[in-house]
Amino acid sequence: MYEVEVKVRADHESVRSTLERLDARRRGTVEQTDVYFDAPHRNFAETDEALRLRREVEGEESRTVLTYKGSRVDEESKTREEIEMPIDDVSDAKAILEALGFEPAATVAKTRDRWTLEGYEVALDDVDGLGQYLEVEAEAEEDEIELVRDGAIQVLRSLDLDPDAQIRTSYLGLLLADEGSKNS
Amino acid sequence: MYEVEVKVRADHESVRSTLERLDARRRGTVEQTDVYFDAPHRNFAETDEALRLRREVEGEESRTVLTYKGSRVDEESKTREEIEMPIDDVSDAKAILEALGFEPAATVAKTRDRWTLEGYEVALDDVDGLGQYLEVEAEAEEDEIELVRDGAIQVLRSLDLDPDAQIRTSYLGLLLADEGSKNS
Repeated sequence: MYEVEVKVRADHESVRSTLERLDARRRGTVEQTDVYFDAPHRNFAETDEALRLRREVEGEESRTVLTYKGSRVDEESKTREEIEMPIDDVSDAKAILEALGFEPAATVAKTRDRWTLEGYEVALDDVDGLGQYLEVEAEAEEDEIELVRDGAIQVLRSLDLDPDAQIRTSYLGLLLADEGSKNS
Repeated sequence: MYEVEVKVRADHESVRSTLERLDARRRGTVEQTDVYFDAPHRNFAETDEALRLRREVEGEESRTVLTYKGSRVDEESKTREEIEMPIDDVSDAKAILEALGFEPAATVAKTRDRWTLEGYEVALDDVDGLGQYLEVEAEAEEDEIELVRDGAIQVLRSLDLDPDAQIRTSYLGLLLADEGSKNS
């Protein structure tokens, strides 16, 4: 399965009123804390892969998912292969990864306000240390990627956002770039 | 957590009657199919580690567990560090491992008849291609290993089995050695 994803900077207040006007369905707010791992045998920054352990809290509920993301397959979006695996116990998962030589590299924490519009998930992300973004996401089989990506771009347009302002860098990449510029 | 384990070859029929005489508790029979993975960055045969995806079927029930086993810490048993992680979907787990470069190396299939005696699990294993074995197992914290191992050896003795006949090689190791001797 592929994750088709387009992302722009966006002021949430004005986007929320557009989402309400378009009758988008509000699905609630979650707190996501993502730990990204470095691999012992390849440089994920170079191969454009990621291994992420996500802890998601929604009210009283929490869940943990281990996700592998492959390199981007598309020049016009952030589309990647994605394999997700729900985890019962976050500490066992972390212990196995570390025993195998994978090391926690960076943590990305955000509040995600989730909506559904035209079959796409619209995520209003408030990322610690980075600010407000909006992502339009959907899953696709390999032969649907182009179609699903064009649809995601239409969703951006319907929210009065500019598809040409797309950011293809992950939050992890943006945070690391930000830290790099502070340290230089 | 550590897995303390002693293993010997054993004829199941005579052991079963001894277990019944000692009032051991019978816990039922499971079918276990274990896929062992090779790592892309180290040779588990040399480091004496293992990464195992176990599918266990007990009647109508089935479950999957990913287990990391560290190298043996003890000359007198098969005691190892062990980290277990229950898995919902075996195919997602396999897909993530393979995407990260881990490759299925060998499969060990067995029927395990499980008993409890003196707080230890006594497993009567009938291993495809290898025959009948018996394992005495318990979990231990690091500072209990010696005590728990000595108890396991007492359990072997109470079953009229010879602790000096212990086999410290894993079923995977025995199978690979067996294949090696056939191919040579």
